[in-house]
Amino acid sequence: MSKTQNIYLYLFFFLIKWAVLAGLVGLLAGSASAFFLVSLKWAAETRETYSWFLFLLPFGGMLVSFLYWKYGLNSAKGNNLLIEQAHGAKESIPFRMAPLVLFGTIVTHLFGGSAGREGTAVQMGGAFSELIGKLFKLDEVDRKIIIICGISSGFGSVFGTPLAGTVFGLEVLALGLIRHEAIFPAFIAAFVGDIVTTTVWGVGHHHYEIGTIPSLSALLLLKILFAAILFGLTSTLFSELTHWLKKQYTKLFPNPMLKSFVGGLVIIGLVYIVGTRKYLGLGIPLIDDAFEGEVSPLTFITKLLFTSLTLGAGYQGGEVTPLFAIGSTLGSSLGDILQVSIPFLAALGFIGVFCGATNTPIACFIMGIELFGSEASLYLFLVCIISYLFSGHTGIYTSQQIGVSKS
Amino acid sequence: MSKTQNIYLYLFFFLIKWAVLAGLVGLLAGSASAFFLVSLKWAAETRETYSWFLFLLPFGGMLVSFLYWKYGLNSAKGNNLLIEQAHGAKESIPFRMAPLVLFGTIVTHLFGGSAGREGTAVQMGGAFSELIGKLFKLDEVDRKIIIICGISSGFGSVFGTPLAGTVFGLEVLALGLIRHEAIFPAFIAAFVGDIVTTTVWGVGHHHYEIGTIPSLSALLLLKILFAAILFGLTSTLFSELTHWLKKQYTKLFPNPMLKSFVGGLVIIGLVYIVGTRKYLGLGIPLIDDAFEGEVSPLTFITKLLFTSLTLGAGYQGGEVTPLFAIGSTLGSSLGDILQVSIPFLAALGFIGVFCGATNTPIACFIMGIELFGSEASLYLFLVCIISYLFSGHTGIYTSQQIGVSKS
Repeated sequence: MSKTQNIYLYLFFFLIKWAVLAGLVGLLAGSASAFFLVSLKWAAETRETYSWFLFLLPFGGMLVSFLYWKYGLNSAKGNNLLIEQAHGAKESIPFRMAPLVLFGTIVTHLFGGSAGREGTAVQMGGAFSELIGKLFKLDEVDRKIIIICGISSGFGSVFGTPLAGTVFGLEVLALGLIRHEAIFPAFIAAFVGDIVTTTVWGVGHHHYEIGTIPSLSALLLLKILFAAILFGLTSTLFSELTHWLKKQYTKLFPNPMLKSFVGGLVIIGLVYIVGTRKYLGLGIPLIDDAFEGEVSPLTFITKLLFTSLTLGAGYQGGEVTPLFAIGSTLGSSLGDILQVSIPFLAALGFIGVFCGATNTPIACFIMGIELFGSEASLYLFLVCIISYLFSGHTGIYTSQQIGVSKS
Repeated sequence: MSKTQNIYLYLFFFLIKWAVLAGLVGLLAGSASAFFLVSLKWAAETRETYSWFLFLLPFGGMLVSFLYWKYGLNSAKGNNLLIEQAHGAKESIPFRMAPLVLFGTIVTHLFGGSAGREGTAVQMGGAFSELIGKLFKLDEVDRKIIIICGISSGFGSVFGTPLAGTVFGLEVLALGLIRHEAIFPAFIAAFVGDIVTTTVWGVGHHHYEIGTIPSLSALLLLKILFAAILFGLTSTLFSELTHWLKKQYTKLFPNPMLKSFVGGLVIIGLVYIVGTRKYLGLGIPLIDDAFEGEVSPLTFITKLLFTSLTLGAGYQGGEVTPLFAIGSTLGSSLGDILQVSIPFLAALGFIGVFCGATNTPIACFIMGIELFGSEASLYLFLVCIISYLFSGHTGIYTSQQIGVSKS
């Protein structure tokens, strides 16, 4: 009996300890996400007001690259640094990662790069969690857990999807595996982070309507299967192109400042080639268009190109919101071609391309439920696993280990 | 390029192969579940019509134990045999497991034992999948996958929850881990199984209404936390009591026929002690009462006792539906005490006790979504992880490996 009592005592201690530690991570990461979301909105509005800001992109990029080069230490490794540390690597996550990535991402968006925000939120979360870990002198095992908390909290609070954030932190570390050991801390961090962003700071999230869910039929399943394969292949294209561009840019311009400067010029050139600025920034207007069926079949590939070129040239920001835009515009176009409800396929694409690029099928499925409700759950699940399989062993996070081979 | 082409060719082959193999498993397991569900309904109705059937329970138990003893080979290991084989053990799953567990479970329910149905459906699924595996001469790796298909398909079709079935098959094998390698085959098997049960054979499932979801508050979270701890402890009590009773019964009555005979007499005695027959069978009327708030605080513990005594004496049948009954009646009573909406806490208990006993938090969370919709998802998730933590390293499946320690 005493052994059992000890187990429950230990468990209570575990819960209280992690409610405090993960709660702190959530408080900081959620506040950072709120500030970041407000800043992003300001950056996008300012960019739209002063159209000449675009011409500052090469200079902004140069400045951020300079800061990273001069002061960044290993911050430039970004999300991969967090994934490695959550696997138990011994490199320190410098606190400067948080202000650097925040400033860098705002610069990207203010001057018109095409990038996302999850990377930024996750890296801020990671930097805060390392700080708390050092403050409380956590041991090796607990340090891994608190870094997972940072990832979950950043992700959950920036998208308003705490449950997807929780599972994302557990699933993103290794391909093909979910380990439950950090499930409670990750949940607390993501939940508190989301509450802090939305309730404490009053920063809301955009909602999309999936519309009426088509009724099940063999033909519908075949169409969705076809779409899901394309979602998976698109995510591979995005990951591989971005990695390839990163390599080529670095080979051609070993000086990171010059690299970002040239990368900025390329984006400006591309804006004048396509003749529109709608591919700049997060791509939220594109997502709106996708759900309303107002996109051309080339939209998704153009957004993909803009984002790969931005991130390939070393600009800061995440990949996920552009992936949402790429996926939902692709889904929207497919809706037209396959004669399936457009907002429905846009929603499936939104989740599907993201899933293939991050290799986190269960987290993406749960995100689908959190964003679009449970009525489409069967289709969301199908899309997640097919896109996951068809993205192969590629992904946007090169430090993701292969836990279990896909096939 | 050719390597990439080979990967996609391989993937197409993988998908087609498993669509066929897992589809076959789903076809057979889904049909078996349909037949089983209809038989269960008949057994319950017959038992209620002829109340003297209860007195045949000791003889029915004796007959089933005799059949297992004489012809069962290793079938008596039940779900644990499947879990071991899905881990790669080399013991054969005899096809006779399917008819034996089907007949045995119907006998349990016809004469008034208190037991469930998932064990039966999962074991039928496992027996069919081993048969198909032998027919197609699958290698070791594929054999593990097809056994997972059998588990997912049986579970998904008997409860009408294909997504929970899919994840259950992946999550039940080891505590604290989900491995994604069989995710596509498991999904096909569970999805086809569910469609075959419901659409092809027209066998429906009971639905419960979770009612209005209370709005989030710190007090509500504390109440749910308290309830979830009780759900986890209740599941431990159930698992430990059943294991203990199995040992004691076997020690006292080494002859399995005598063991079941005495076990039947004990159930009859208990019926006369409590003075009602409502604890016999699956417990679906209890679940109905729970959602309507018409249960006493002792209901859950009485159902727990009836079920542990039935299964402890070697009767066939699963544990899950009684766990639903135990959980929902406990939740219902707590709703009264904690001043929280009764159907809401009944739903949380329904999922929570089950989760603690099977150690499958993600599968249980998804089952909650499939049964009760996404509105309560946050609370369902919280209950699943807390109950999972508080059930410790115990559970109803003794062959479940410890993949990752809980804390």
